[in-house]
Formats: sequence, structure tokens, C-alpha cells
Amino acid sequence: MTAMHPTPSGTRDVLPDEMRELRAITDAIRGAFEDAGYGEVWTPAIEFEHVVGRMDGGGGGYRLFDDHGSVLRLRSDLTVPIARVAATRYAKTEPPLRFSSFAHVYRGVKPGRGQMRETLQAGVELIGAQGPDGTAEVLTVLCAALDAAGLREYRIGLGDAGLYPALLASVGVDAQRTAAILDALVARDLVRLSVDVHALGLDATTTGLLTSVPLLRGGVEILDGVDDRVDTGRLRAVHGAVSGAVADRLIFDLGLVRDLDYYTGAVFEIYDPAAGMPLGGGGRYDDLVGQFGRDLPAVGFSVDLNGLHIALAGEQRGERPRAQENPA
Amino acid sequence: MTAMHPTPSGTRDVLPDEMRELRAITDAIRGAFEDAGYGEVWTPAIEFEHVVGRMDGGGGGYRLFDDHGSVLRLRSDLTVPIARVAATRYAKTEPPLRFSSFAHVYRGVKPGRGQMRETLQAGVELIGAQGPDGTAEVLTVLCAALDAAGLREYRIGLGDAGLYPALLASVGVDAQRTAAILDALVARDLVRLSVDVHALGLDATTTGLLTSVPLLRGGVEILDGVDDRVDTGRLRAVHGAVSGAVADRLIFDLGLVRDLDYYTGAVFEIYDPAAGMPLGGGGRYDDLVGQFGRDLPAVGFSVDLNGLHIALAGEQRGERPRAQENPA
Repeated sequence: MTAMHPTPSGTRDVLPDEMRELRAITDAIRGAFEDAGYGEVWTPAIEFEHVVGRMDGGGGGYRLFDDHGSVLRLRSDLTVPIARVAATRYAKTEPPLRFSSFAHVYRGVKPGRGQMRETLQAGVELIGAQGPDGTAEVLTVLCAALDAAGLREYRIGLGDAGLYPALLASVGVDAQRTAAILDALVARDLVRLSVDVHALGLDATTTGLLTSVPLLRGGVEILDGVDDRVDTGRLRAVHGAVSGAVADRLIFDLGLVRDLDYYTGAVFEIYDPAAGMPLGGGGRYDDLVGQFGRDLPAVGFSVDLNGLHIALAGEQRGERPRAQENPA
Repeated sequence: MTAMHPTPSGTRDVLPDEMRELRAITDAIRGAFEDAGYGEVWTPAIEFEHVVGRMDGGGGGYRLFDDHGSVLRLRSDLTVPIARVAATRYAKTEPPLRFSSFAHVYRGVKPGRGQMRETLQAGVELIGAQGPDGTAEVLTVLCAALDAAGLREYRIGLGDAGLYPALLASVGVDAQRTAAILDALVARDLVRLSVDVHALGLDATTTGLLTSVPLLRGGVEILDGVDDRVDTGRLRAVHGAVSGAVADRLIFDLGLVRDLDYYTGAVFEIYDPAAGMPLGGGGRYDDLVGQFGRDLPAVGFSVDLNGLHIALAGEQRGERPRAQENPA
């Protein structure tokens, strides 16, 4: 029967037993966001393309057309609409502004990749707070939310979207070649990155630096051995601004660059051993709110609630447990 | 600022104070649905047009296209997707099946009418239960949900989508003229209906009957004086199957015909003196689930949660209070 009446690939029906669990997770996370002072907002799932479309990282969004000839976009992201709300509905309000949202986002899918077209996300945006303190605050809220949901084994990969571009600039790589190399980095294609770096014709030490930095990943101690030309100051500052419990969750990752154009500084992703994919992520987007008319630095994240649900179930079944660490 | 970065007409941002109230209403209604045994489901907001598009009452829905050339529809209704879920995912489950859902629906708007493109609805579907008992059950759930939300002054208009068509057939009106007259009735255009009825050239008594029946509206006693050619049996049976508290909320309305093609019997709408528009409604759709491969009678309703929120606020401000009836 289902085969005769399918839903599009990357979408699915959620039936009552699962829905009850998803609601419990959502309620726990909403409570954590509220406790931290993040008020929930709802923005329309359909917006004018000329208002939000160009800012959502491009590609993969759904366009639709109304009877008046307007080009609309289906929401592909929680951050851009909230940046719009902050700049327009809170144009005179003293920052920082704290918002949360729970909504589905819609993205195009490539055949056979198992990608989701429709994803339920929970997110927060902190607008008008600089790094490192603002970044530390949202990392703290993120950990509180995951803790409230009951996730135990998660780690947060922390990178800096500006670090590698600054390194390339410091060794004189031009804009065009920088773009190609960053494209390889975003795709986590370190073979292509290495080929592109070697083609720059730089000295062996610099070439070695450019190919090795994206591989650096681990505790805060990895920052100590890094070449002076790599500016790890912002990462160290975030580490210094979070509590010990949050710091213990962090994995510093100098190769982490998220794939949305609007990130400007710290970027992060959520991992769990019971999940095959990141459960979400976020970062600083200090230039985005200004595009809607109010120039404020900002940082936020989103969590994929279905992925989180799967990870929670996996942890409960004891998949890839970390022995002794978390007596349950 | 907002003028520079608008959202489409009929959509809006919901800010935290209002969102908190909407969540409280939603939680109260979800609790009432759960208490009555209705499990929540989520269905995708985007579905294939060839699966659901032709069944949603037509017109006004949004179409979109994916990269594979498929024609998709944005959800315009909660009932059709749940009929699909019931027939395909519960193909072998013993009826009755009870589902609830909370989701936004999307419909095209006409300029200047103040219509909403995006509406948050709460609904239930009872699948595999005949009228009058099934109809009485969902009316009872509806009252429990509105009571749980705190609405006090509401009434439920109850009609029968089959009553007037059967009356027209009994006096020999042909299919084409029946369609035109029903179109006027759905539009609540009683002037046009009267013109069309007079043009039938029937005797004065019959003409008087056809023009007066759609005006009959009131307590159950209005059914007593109706001409024998009008079959009020199903309405009486529903009245006999509900509790006194639910019966007290009912207004019988022989002119009520909802505008979705799939209704087959009892239809109803929710009114409140503090609301300018119906807060939702529903009815029987005994032929819809069968179109997805499992022939089961069904009945359901949806409530417009934003309209309900406005009505609750209006009642609390004492707008159009019904003196003495409800000491608050």
C-alpha cells in the first residue's frame, strides 16, 4: 500500500510512539532554552526570496510561486529568519537578544544519498553578544539542552571559520585560489586540498603547514604545538570562557569549516558515538543581522531532533558505550 | 525596517510572549486528545501531488518542484495525509484508529481579504467508526479540547452535507442544477440560491421549502417542525448520542455545508462570540480513506489555534460577554 501512495524521498511519517518520544525531547530542550532566557519565536515557513533567499547559504532550497507572481522560498534554515526578526521587530531593543525556535527546515536532496528533505530542528540565536563570551554562552546552552534531553556521550567539535582563510592570506595566497582550497576544506576533501596546496608552489615548510593544520584535532593541548602563523587566539578565548564541564565536551578541530557562507568565527558541530552524522552545529555570524539593517554580532546553533532521538535510543541500547565513564 | 524586509501577506512572525501562550493552548489541547486516546502523528509538509493533491478540496494549494522533476504540494489540510497514513501504515490494524496532529497548513490567498497563508491547526481523525457514534465521539473530544484550552462561550454549528443534496434529488432537480445550487449554498449566498431555486419552476410549496430549509438554525427543536421531505434522521441521531453538556453546545444549522469536497455526512463549525470567524470545524468523510486503499468511514476536525488564541483573549477581556451565564 505504501508503495502505491509514497511520500517524497527524504520525508517520512512519524507515528504516535515515536512522536511521543520526540515531544518529550522537544519539551526538555525547550525547558533548557527557557531557563537560559531564550524566548521561542515562530517565523513563516514561506518567505519572499528577495528577503531571505540569498542569505541561506544558497542551493538546495525550494522555491514556490504565489498567485500574485511573487517568488517564495520554503524555510531552509532557522538562523536567517531570526536574524530578520531581530533586526526588524527588535530594531530599538537593547541587546543582547535571545531567541529560540523549533521548526522543520526543507532542503533539496540528491538521489541515493539518504539526505532528508524535511528536518525538525531546535535552535537558539544570541544576537548582540561578541565572542568569546557570547560563543561560550551558546555552547553552555547547547550542553544544557543535550543534557536535559538525556544525551550522555556527546562531544562538540570546535573550529574557527576564519582561521584557515587568515593563514592562507598570511602566506600570500590569492582570493581565487583561496576559494578553491576552502571549497575542498568545506567538503572535507583533504586529498583535493593537498593537491591544491602543493600547486601553490610554496616552500616545503609552508606547504607542510597548510596541509597539516586541517588535520589537527583533539583536546585544548593541540593548540599549544601549532605554528605561530596560525591564529588560535579565538579558540583559546572560548576555551577560557566556558565552565570545566563544557570544556570537557570540546574537541578542537582546526579543519572544521561549516558549509554556510554566513559563518565568521567560531563554528561547531555536535557528535555522538551512537550517531553516524553530526547532530547539528552552529557558529558565529557577525555580518548577517546587519544585512537586515541592524549591525550586531551574533552566534547560534541548531540541533537535528530526529538525529538526537536516534542517538538517544542508540545510547540506551548501549551502542559503542564508553566503558566506566558514564555510570548510568 | 519591517517594510524593507516583509513577510508574505497572510504570514507573520510570532514573538515570545504570544508563542508562550500558544504553547500553553497547544499543550492543553494535546493533553485532551491524549486522554481521549488520540495519538499524535506528523506527516511531511511536502507530498507528491499525484498522491494527495487531487483530494484536498482543490484550489489554493502551493505547488513546488524538486530537482528530480516531481510535482510536490505544500500541506493544505491535516485530514488527507492522515487518511493516507491510516490506509497505508495501519492497513491491517483493527479499527477504529485514532490520530491527532498539530501542524501548519498552507493555502493561497486573495489580495485584500485578510486570509492567512499559514495557519497552525490542531486536529483529530477517527477512522473506522460510523456515525452517529463516531461523530458524537469527535464532537465530545472537540468540546473537551476547547474546555481544556479555557474557552467558555463557544458553540458548535452542526449540519449534514448530504441533507440538502438529498432534498434536491427528492424533488427531481438534475445534477447540473444541483451543483450550481450547492455552490451557492457553500458560498452562503442565499440570494443566488433563491434565484436558482425559483428558476427551477417548481410549485410554490416546494420552492418555499428549498429556500427556507437553508435558513433553519437553532436548538434541536427546529428539527421538529421540518417538512417530512427533509431527512433530519442523522442529525437527530448525533444529538441522541452526545452527552447533555455537548448537546448544549450544538446549534443545528440546515444550511451548513462545508467547502471541502470530501465531506459526506455530518459537518460542523466552531463559533465563539469573541471571534469574527469560525475557529475551525470538521465532519464525516466516509469515502476518503478508501481512496488510499482501505475503505473505512471516518470523521474528524481541525481547530485554528491562532483564532482560538484570539478568542480566548477576547473572552478574557470580556468582549461580548453573555451576562450571568458564566460567572468568571
